[in-house]
Amino acid sequence: MLTEFDTTLPSIIQVQNLIKQTTPVELKLLTGDVLTGRVLWQDPQCICIADENSQQTTVWKQAIAYIKPKVS
Amino acid sequence: MLTEFDTTLPSIIQVQNLIKQTTPVELKLLTGDVLTGRVLWQDPQCICIADENSQQTTVWKQAIAYIKPKVS
Amino acid sequence: MLTEFDTTLPSIIQVQNLIKQTTPVELKLLTGDVLTGRVLWQDPQCICIADENSQQTTVWKQAIAYIKPKVS
Amino acid sequence: MLTEFDTTLPSIIQVQNLIKQTTPVELKLLTGDVLTGRVLWQDPQCICIADENSQQTTVWKQAIAYIKPKVS
Amino acid sequence: MLTEFDTTLPSIIQVQNLIKQTTPVELKLLTGDVLTGRVLWQDPQCICIADENSQQTTVWKQAIAYIKPKVS
Amino acid sequence: MLTEFDTTLPSIIQVQNLIKQTTPVELKLLTGDVLTGRVLWQDPQCICIADENSQQTTVWKQAIAYIKPKVS
Repeated sequence: MLTEFDTTLPSIIQVQNLIKQTTPVELKLLTGDVLTGRVLWQDPQCICIADENSQQTTVWKQAIAYIKPKVS
Repeated sequence: MLTEFDTTLPSIIQVQNLIKQTTPVELKLLTGDVLTGRVLWQDPQCICIADENSQQTTVWKQAIAYIKPKVS
Repeated sequence: MLTEFDTTLPSIIQVQNLIKQTTPVELKLLTGDVLTGRVLWQDPQCICIADENSQQTTVWKQAIAYIKPKVS
Repeated sequence: MLTEFDTTLPSIIQVQNLIKQTTPVELKLLTGDVLTGRVLWQDPQCICIADENSQQTTVWKQAIAYIKPKVS
Repeated sequence: MLTEFDTTLPSIIQVQNLIKQTTPVELKLLTGDVLTGRVLWQDPQCICIADENSQQTTVWKQAIAYIKPKVS
Repeated sequence: MLTEFDTTLPSIIQVQNLIKQTTPVELKLLTGDVLTGRVLWQDPQCICIADENSQQTTVWKQAIAYIKPKVS
């Protein structure tokens, strides 16, 4: 999929901030899965998050419904 | 995803108006989730809404089924 | 999403006719929802319909399965 | 959605043949719906089919899983 | 949908080989359906398969989850 | 679908590394299926994985929710 990756876009910057601040997040997928963890990196195609055991999951952006900071 | 963001389009303007007027909205997602709150911003990829506790959720536009003003 | 909006296409013209004739329609979404009402406008990204109480819903075209005139 | 509509493609020609021959078809959608009827027209965005009562339904191609001639 | 159809790609070649060798396959769709049969042709938009009764089904590629040789 | 295949992207490189290292992975699909095995190849359209019996499955990237190394 051709993917927009304009690093001046609010949504791209927001994910970059989540990465820098290692904010715990919830990522809801179109499958209904909710992944929790910290975002490690994003590229035009994917977002990689690590859970509390440092287990990494690479999520295709096409499968994301929403992301939000995890309420503690 | 390459995303159209022509700010003269009715659908883009409508969301901009929802932002300016801080209209409470319902956002139905392809997951079946219904998010309620006020729209904070949109960009070509996402719409960010805040619920009554100011908890922010960034929704990928690809996951949106519809948006409507919340009937009070 | 880059969206085709060639106003000579049968499917675009058909929706324009539904708007002009204020035909009651059923709109089936990929979520399984069926919205009923009259189409108010379309743009490359969305179709806006109003139900019998003039409540407006803006539907992302990506979420549409089909549209048909409502059988009365 | 930018849509390919190369009328030399086998899949486009096949639908054109279904139209000319008024072949009864089954159209399975990503919603799980199965529509049956005869194909009236296609354009890059939609396929329109009519059921036995001449009720027309305009299906977005994005929502199609498969089409097949109806086994009588 | 603009569709890539580079006949040097492994995935395109693999389907071409399934066609030439008339290999029985399972095709899993995003609807959850599993179609079985032999692949007759592919184009940028669709894959056509025939079941054991030579009943043909034309599947939109957008609806495919995976394809695999059928284990006998 | 036009597909980005920039071999300098982290997500593309990560899959290439999974291939080279023959890492056991879990691939979650939008259908809800979880496939396990080793990645054999990727191209812009598909990822091919082989299970423990060397049974190959070619997955369309459009259907992928996430990939992660299998926890043993």
